[in-house]
Amino acid sequence: MDQAIISVVRKLQMVNTSDHNSVVSINIFVALLCASIVIGHLLEESRWMNESITALLIGVCAGVIILLTTGGKSSHLFVFSEDLFFIYVLPPIIFNAGFQVKKKQFFRNFITIMLFGAIGTLVSCTIISLGVIQFFKKLDIGTLDIGDYLAIGAIFAATDSVCTLQVLNQDDTPLLYSLVFGEGVVNDATSVVLFNAIQSFDLTHINTRSAFQFIGNFLYLFFTSTLLGVIAGLLSAYIIKKLYFGRHSTDREVAIMVLMAYLSYMLAELFYLSGILTVFFCGIVMSHYTWHNVTESSRVTTKHTFATLSFVAEIFIFLYVGMDALDIEKWRFVKGSPGTSVAASAMLMGLIMAGRAAFVFPLSFLTNLAKKSPTEKISIKQQVIIWWAGLMRGAVSMALAYNQFTRSGHTQLRENAIMITSTITVVLFSTVVFGLMTKPLIRLLLPHAKHTTNHILSDPSTPKSLSQPLLEEGQQDSYADLGGPTVPRPGSLRALLTTPTHTVHYYWRKFDDAFMRPVFGGRGFAPFVPGSPTERSVRGGQ
Amino acid sequence: MDQAIISVVRKLQMVNTSDHNSVVSINIFVALLCASIVIGHLLEESRWMNESITALLIGVCAGVIILLTTGGKSSHLFVFSEDLFFIYVLPPIIFNAGFQVKKKQFFRNFITIMLFGAIGTLVSCTIISLGVIQFFKKLDIGTLDIGDYLAIGAIFAATDSVCTLQVLNQDDTPLLYSLVFGEGVVNDATSVVLFNAIQSFDLTHINTRSAFQFIGNFLYLFFTSTLLGVIAGLLSAYIIKKLYFGRHSTDREVAIMVLMAYLSYMLAELFYLSGILTVFFCGIVMSHYTWHNVTESSRVTTKHTFATLSFVAEIFIFLYVGMDALDIEKWRFVKGSPGTSVAASAMLMGLIMAGRAAFVFPLSFLTNLAKKSPTEKISIKQQVIIWWAGLMRGAVSMALAYNQFTRSGHTQLRENAIMITSTITVVLFSTVVFGLMTKPLIRLLLPHAKHTTNHILSDPSTPKSLSQPLLEEGQQDSYADLGGPTVPRPGSLRALLTTPTHTVHYYWRKFDDAFMRPVFGGRGFAPFVPGSPTERSVRGGQ
Repeated sequence: MDQAIISVVRKLQMVNTSDHNSVVSINIFVALLCASIVIGHLLEESRWMNESITALLIGVCAGVIILLTTGGKSSHLFVFSEDLFFIYVLPPIIFNAGFQVKKKQFFRNFITIMLFGAIGTLVSCTIISLGVIQFFKKLDIGTLDIGDYLAIGAIFAATDSVCTLQVLNQDDTPLLYSLVFGEGVVNDATSVVLFNAIQSFDLTHINTRSAFQFIGNFLYLFFTSTLLGVIAGLLSAYIIKKLYFGRHSTDREVAIMVLMAYLSYMLAELFYLSGILTVFFCGIVMSHYTWHNVTESSRVTTKHTFATLSFVAEIFIFLYVGMDALDIEKWRFVKGSPGTSVAASAMLMGLIMAGRAAFVFPLSFLTNLAKKSPTEKISIKQQVIIWWAGLMRGAVSMALAYNQFTRSGHTQLRENAIMITSTITVVLFSTVVFGLMTKPLIRLLLPHAKHTTNHILSDPSTPKSLSQPLLEEGQQDSYADLGGPTVPRPGSLRALLTTPTHTVHYYWRKFDDAFMRPVFGGRGFAPFVPGSPTERSVRGGQ
Repeated sequence: MDQAIISVVRKLQMVNTSDHNSVVSINIFVALLCASIVIGHLLEESRWMNESITALLIGVCAGVIILLTTGGKSSHLFVFSEDLFFIYVLPPIIFNAGFQVKKKQFFRNFITIMLFGAIGTLVSCTIISLGVIQFFKKLDIGTLDIGDYLAIGAIFAATDSVCTLQVLNQDDTPLLYSLVFGEGVVNDATSVVLFNAIQSFDLTHINTRSAFQFIGNFLYLFFTSTLLGVIAGLLSAYIIKKLYFGRHSTDREVAIMVLMAYLSYMLAELFYLSGILTVFFCGIVMSHYTWHNVTESSRVTTKHTFATLSFVAEIFIFLYVGMDALDIEKWRFVKGSPGTSVAASAMLMGLIMAGRAAFVFPLSFLTNLAKKSPTEKISIKQQVIIWWAGLMRGAVSMALAYNQFTRSGHTQLRENAIMITSTITVVLFSTVVFGLMTKPLIRLLLPHAKHTTNHILSDPSTPKSLSQPLLEEGQQDSYADLGGPTVPRPGSLRALLTTPTHTVHYYWRKFDDAFMRPVFGGRGFAPFVPGSPTERSVRGGQ
């Protein structure tokens, strides 16, 4: 154990201090990050651009410059590492997604979101896998086995709905926003869990029993990971409520929250679970209980710290993908047969569109059947937007593709190189071309809603003032809900069946207020200290 | 370049995902961090304890348990890496020190602080080096050369005044607090720069010319590093003022501030300067200009984020030092001659006390000569407290000792092992014994001042309410000063000589208000947007 770490430390030493080249690399990379943020800010008002595309294009430009400087040897500063990605970059993004999600909307539409996110991803994966098996035989690509085909399905089932979320307005179209947002997060988690299940599974002998084992394994991962995240979140809430750190120090509260979130992720890794799912649910629980137990300063700090981490991580990814797009090593294999690579990429794009259409419209139809009120139904225009929102492919696809088809970012096999370049092509094409078309498309489909273009990427609810949004949320979310006229009380079995989410939500609120909040704190149940800043907001909310 | 990083990535892969043991280590370490914070909080009210001692003792306990579990093989989870320390752990602490320092007090006492911090450290280093050369010959330690002796001087000249700062009250004894705080930071930077200068210098041929070269090198490092930090800070202020990010997003502002601070550190590494000094001055400039150009949310977030990072880093260090104290490998060599090690440690403790007394009392006397008003003079009791505050040795000494006497945390030479165990003994003894005596001692020496024991470690000015301290600071610090009755206008040469700091401070304020603030923002010069939250605090401050 020590030996491994020593060697890492030695290498890090070499990289970080002795190896002056890598200091140069880090400097350039950090400077590019700053440049992306500043330029993304300047282009904010533009009709077409968004932060992701900006970072991607800056990455490509930097890649070209590095390629010219190094005489065509390399286009990036670091080799893509899917571990760096899954351990340091993705967790803050997913945690923040859970932390900032509007829980009321999320849990109201819980069943729809799970349908789209989990079942939809499975459908999409299946269709892409089948399509690839069908069509790739006609192309002269090489030897890919059944595991590779299924992995390709999981790789291209992972969506990236950031572009669309930047354009949608949470207040004008709450249903649409929460569906796209929720589906995006559940989709990320599902495709990663699915990908891991496929990789770790022996696919040479498929029979009914092994298929059931696969499904069982998948469900086990899903539920234990969720449970771990919930427990970690509740533990942090309980500790902070019992000890009431804020009396002494904001820093302690912030430190405990960040460390517990990280601990939940590492514990998931320890038990071979899905850390992504764990931090997502840890984030949800922390924002529902823990966040309300801390002082006002801690609330502002944690909210913005998590959002900033997620924001920087997203820019990091797109910048990186942009720089990596020109990597000579992978394109070398493609030079001989450019047609094959273009055909494969086009085929994948087609399959992505078909695979997504194959579940968005049927599942929307099913969901609409269960809803009574026409305002709650998903209109055909909204269905098109949901479909469109999931066409972009991003960093998760890249990371999974690298994991499947390279060893530490390198490959020497032609078929693997083609898969990597196809993935890069699909990611670049879908992010840039579809991304640029998103704003105009949504303006066209939803002309009635006002579109705030200066909505920000990772934290759409960044408070302009400090106390106001806290109060606002408190009033809107916590109390208006309980037994209000909008919640239909279940009078019959039919009502229970047709409005299951509302009913589940209603009983959950009752349970939450009766048992959970008194123990774990949360809005209105935070420890009350006379004269403390929480006094105002807590009492104000009631 | 790539190759080195690839191998690191491979190792990290191994460590982070494949190597399950290190996942266990990380889990235990993060859990211990959480435990230290919680227990430190519970012991807050205690008369004797503080956070550092708590973390140190928890570390020792964990070390004992690990030692028993592994059957006496190892007592720590990671091998101490001075690079990990200097690159990831120390910079946030130093940056935060610069960011949170009360600039008015700091610059008012600038000359005194520089006397204590820079000249004092040199005096201390010289005395310890000479003493060690004198006394170590009598002990049977082994072959240490002149470079080792000078390095020992620098190692034990690095103080750790955290314990004392936790007990002192910034409002009751502002002069004392700012002297101890300021000296501590300048001392850290000086001893690290000194240590590097000693290590990189050819000490076999010492003559007048090389001595001057040494001093020139030291001064060059000091001033260019400072300049780089100031430039990076001003650049961040200028960018944020010009673009006014807050209009769109708090996250962008926070991200730019953090990234620019990190960039300043990495740039210093790039130009082979002292990153420690650079981030310290970058922190000062950022808190003076940049911090006032951002939104209220960003202010709260950055203030607490930097404080939390520093807080966690400090706990991390003490926890680590505690765990490392029992490392068998180093004590193995000492077993044969326990007397030698004890004698060496006792001798070092004596030299530390003598070396510190040798500059605190003479320099205080000199400073007092230049002050007219008796309230500004440093009383003999305060001198004793200043002397006491710098007796503790901490993480910087450990890191420097590891750097000088081990290779990646390991050593096979007897004399080196003895130096490492002596350092551990000095750090443990001074932190625990002197640390425990600090609270009672200060109560004895300063009985008139009320001592708030629940002062927190890294952020003594954590706002209890959000807007109040901002307003308060604005009134107290920015305007009351200018031309107020407390600033004596220099009427004669004598006045210029006897009140140099006040005069420098006065001219700096004039320059700052006339030239710097209009360009770089700062309190009262932040871009004004009607209806924005800055309106209240900025206008309120005027």
